[in-house]
Amino acid sequence: MSETAPISRFPIPTLEEMPEDIRARILAVQEKSGFIPNVFLVLARRPDEFRAFFAYHDALMDKPGNLTKAEREMIVVATSNLNQCQYCVIAHGAILRIRAKNPLIADQVAINYRKADITDRQKAMLDFAIKVSQTAHMVQEPDFDALKIHGFTEEDAWDIAGIASFFALSNRMANITAMRPNAEFFAMAR
Amino acid sequence: MSETAPISRFPIPTLEEMPEDIRARILAVQEKSGFIPNVFLVLARRPDEFRAFFAYHDALMDKPGNLTKAEREMIVVATSNLNQCQYCVIAHGAILRIRAKNPLIADQVAINYRKADITDRQKAMLDFAIKVSQTAHMVQEPDFDALKIHGFTEEDAWDIAGIASFFALSNRMANITAMRPNAEFFAMAR
Amino acid sequence: MSETAPISRFPIPTLEEMPEDIRARILAVQEKSGFIPNVFLVLARRPDEFRAFFAYHDALMDKPGNLTKAEREMIVVATSNLNQCQYCVIAHGAILRIRAKNPLIADQVAINYRKADITDRQKAMLDFAIKVSQTAHMVQEPDFDALKIHGFTEEDAWDIAGIASFFALSNRMANITAMRPNAEFFAMAR
Amino acid sequence: MSETAPISRFPIPTLEEMPEDIRARILAVQEKSGFIPNVFLVLARRPDEFRAFFAYHDALMDKPGNLTKAEREMIVVATSNLNQCQYCVIAHGAILRIRAKNPLIADQVAINYRKADITDRQKAMLDFAIKVSQTAHMVQEPDFDALKIHGFTEEDAWDIAGIASFFALSNRMANITAMRPNAEFFAMAR
Amino acid sequence: MSETAPISRFPIPTLEEMPEDIRARILAVQEKSGFIPNVFLVLARRPDEFRAFFAYHDALMDKPGNLTKAEREMIVVATSNLNQCQYCVIAHGAILRIRAKNPLIADQVAINYRKADITDRQKAMLDFAIKVSQTAHMVQEPDFDALKIHGFTEEDAWDIAGIASFFALSNRMANITAMRPNAEFFAMAR
Amino acid sequence: MSETAPISRFPIPTLEEMPEDIRARILAVQEKSGFIPNVFLVLARRPDEFRAFFAYHDALMDKPGNLTKAEREMIVVATSNLNQCQYCVIAHGAILRIRAKNPLIADQVAINYRKADITDRQKAMLDFAIKVSQTAHMVQEPDFDALKIHGFTEEDAWDIAGIASFFALSNRMANITAMRPNAEFFAMAR
Repeated sequence: MSETAPISRFPIPTLEEMPEDIRARILAVQEKSGFIPNVFLVLARRPDEFRAFFAYHDALMDKPGNLTKAEREMIVVATSNLNQCQYCVIAHGAILRIRAKNPLIADQVAINYRKADITDRQKAMLDFAIKVSQTAHMVQEPDFDALKIHGFTEEDAWDIAGIASFFALSNRMANITAMRPNAEFFAMAR
Repeated sequence: MSETAPISRFPIPTLEEMPEDIRARILAVQEKSGFIPNVFLVLARRPDEFRAFFAYHDALMDKPGNLTKAEREMIVVATSNLNQCQYCVIAHGAILRIRAKNPLIADQVAINYRKADITDRQKAMLDFAIKVSQTAHMVQEPDFDALKIHGFTEEDAWDIAGIASFFALSNRMANITAMRPNAEFFAMAR
Repeated sequence: MSETAPISRFPIPTLEEMPEDIRARILAVQEKSGFIPNVFLVLARRPDEFRAFFAYHDALMDKPGNLTKAEREMIVVATSNLNQCQYCVIAHGAILRIRAKNPLIADQVAINYRKADITDRQKAMLDFAIKVSQTAHMVQEPDFDALKIHGFTEEDAWDIAGIASFFALSNRMANITAMRPNAEFFAMAR
Repeated sequence: MSETAPISRFPIPTLEEMPEDIRARILAVQEKSGFIPNVFLVLARRPDEFRAFFAYHDALMDKPGNLTKAEREMIVVATSNLNQCQYCVIAHGAILRIRAKNPLIADQVAINYRKADITDRQKAMLDFAIKVSQTAHMVQEPDFDALKIHGFTEEDAWDIAGIASFFALSNRMANITAMRPNAEFFAMAR
Repeated sequence: MSETAPISRFPIPTLEEMPEDIRARILAVQEKSGFIPNVFLVLARRPDEFRAFFAYHDALMDKPGNLTKAEREMIVVATSNLNQCQYCVIAHGAILRIRAKNPLIADQVAINYRKADITDRQKAMLDFAIKVSQTAHMVQEPDFDALKIHGFTEEDAWDIAGIASFFALSNRMANITAMRPNAEFFAMAR
Repeated sequence: MSETAPISRFPIPTLEEMPEDIRARILAVQEKSGFIPNVFLVLARRPDEFRAFFAYHDALMDKPGNLTKAEREMIVVATSNLNQCQYCVIAHGAILRIRAKNPLIADQVAINYRKADITDRQKAMLDFAIKVSQTAHMVQEPDFDALKIHGFTEEDAWDIAGIASFFALSNRMANITAMRPNAEFFAMAR
């Protein structure tokens, strides 16, 4: 509650203690965002995992493709709230508001995307994403067909599944580490 | 997504169509808040249910008692997110931020209260509230004992259970009616 | 098991201690039924909640509408057994037997309405009621459409949802207070 | 609802069509009870399964042992309601009322045994039985220890588990066959 | 892991202590298989239950019928893994490999039959079996219709349900007794 | 079932089509193992995801640390079976048998680790891993304390959580892609 509330239940290395490439990435993010999102600091104590985590993140979230940046963030926000991941809902909720240029959409999608101000196509995308996140073992061809009705391609299906799967990992690590969302995210782009 | 997005899947009466007492209450709320929270408009088409709903709400949320106003809102927000109730999380999240004078607390409590900036006593309160909300049939004396360790009385236990139970009703009606949270709530007190 | 088994884990006020309007209602019920159903005694210690509870109950259960009185009780009985609420299943089971003039129907509906001696229309009503009771956040337009196939109107849908939602509250309070069903209910109308 | 409501979704053999030993057993039950419980008729079309089913039933329910006959029926009733098995709750509920000489106990135990007029020892027995019925894979030594605190022996633990397991089978077959409880059971011993 | 790892948490009678018919059956199995599957030893301490158990087993698994022996074992393996029953998955997995003359099929079916090298007809059979095993109370006519599309008869439906139900019993007893799969099963027919 | 059964529902690039580094890694694996595990082929169509996936895998599975290689595989096998991931259970089951030099352990741990031939310390490790995999949002300090009783350090806790989280991702991608386990894995080291 105080300003010294820890950002993780695990210790955080100082920037000086970090390998050069990790420190460089963190400083670049800080430069761009004006602050260091805590996920960078929390994972930095495991440099190899840090590198793989962000490489995977970027491969899914920054790649070209049919899903808009906002749609990718919708997947993160909707699946992360079901997984009760404070960091991911709050940080990616902020990014979703920015990407969608819509101050209401992140909370709507997080709590119940079926009632959100999104298109039927986006709801179909989130139906699929949530099935991947919660019961991937039951995904079958009719689930892919339901995406195709809305014009999603096979590559789009992989992208949706990839994002839902990556944040299955991310949500668990954030919860285990008690990763604290930065105060900056909460009111961003509202 | 447009400004004409409906506030419910059921029709909304005009203020003129409403019984006098209901219109008066709504106008009083509007006077105080600067806008009419949609729950008033959505339920007004059923005047007797409207009256009972708000009488019950006030009996729990406005009564004297050991639970602070902020604590009562924490119960609403934590249980309503598990029930995926967009209206209750967003509207009562705003009220929680105001009552607690804390811009971060509502999102923290909604997503995972175990990681929120609240006291151990408040976490015990929410443990009990969530058990009432999700598996009330399994509540037994050790659950009351866990409250007492933190100084909660028997009356406090009833209050917590009452709020969790009332919003079990409220969450379901908000979801069935597709009750839309007013845009004003999202950024309030952040 | 003895006749002194408490009717609640919370203390019960005497009739003399109750506010006049509550005492009057209770005496009227006693006059009509020959005994005082324990829900009146258990809730009387909180007069404002008592008044709102029964006002809400009456607004849903006694109002005019297309649902028969027996059908409304079916909703109570089916949803309350899933919530493992002893008081509501036993007390409303008795009322259901009376309303339906059928000594078998309450137990059938409570345990598995899919196998009960009710119409397909009533099974559709209970499908909807149970979805409201258990997973209201997933109710969508196809659920309303399934009601309409059987001739239910929009108002009927609200009534079904309202009853399922109100007993979501009622079931939780009965479980938390350990509300004991009166012995009179068990064999009534069998 | 009519007297011609089928007692199963599968055809029922006539007494004449049944093998001699099965007919004899059924006639003996009819002689003793005054009617033929439908489970005998529904299973008779599969003579080998019929014989094994009742042999297993008798081996658990009629054997000597520390569990009283009423306690064995409590296990049936509590686990069968969680499995939503109409036949087993209603038929064995009647037997429980007879065995316990208590007209209230069956409904109490069926709906929520935690609030039933039974001893703490019997509640511990049902805690174990329900864990066997619902999540047997998670039963571990502390579950056996919890029985021993109440004086249950290793043989008693087997008996409890055996009954809960046998009715796991029975509940499923009754639901699949849509086995109808005889009207006689509903009011028996109330 | 040592050769003295117990085959059950309950004591095992010696062959000499067993009733003659049970000893004879066990010796016959040993003669045929080259070892005594532990289920025989674990259940032998309860002779009446032993006899009923194997009579029921044989009535379902050895009877004539349209389901192949391999298909019956698929039902056992798929439902038993969901119930986390080590003995049944490993022992019947071995039998499935033998019956199907396929070294891969048992593990595939156990873990996720939707991705196994089996026919669509067999997947429909397992869809039905798993619904019986996990949520029999929800089985309704459309579930039977889904079987008929693949040519299954009413008798086949009973057979599938019977096997899934019997192993609901068997899985629970194996878990409660901590029944250890014989080492011989693991590599059999791979 | 035939040798042409596809190894994924998505197309697989030829070795020639792959980027040089990916082809090199695959050839090295083939050289060492005698065959190419399908996960390499299935993910190769997305080179950036491929690189991140295996970098993450190696960072957790090949790093120094207190968990033995066999223990790490136990985490994979136990969590992957709950997620019904055929590829991960079968492939990592083979690796577990090799690492533990124990032909029985993989099937035991996959189906029900509580009954496996592993130490109490390893069972505590798997209790934690499964909680991370299934309900990470509920992990709290007592869960870490339960690890410490068995001598696990904070770093070990991270390792266990990391592996359970990474395979939460991996299980989902394997199920979505319908990734087929190579035939070689099934009988390996039995």
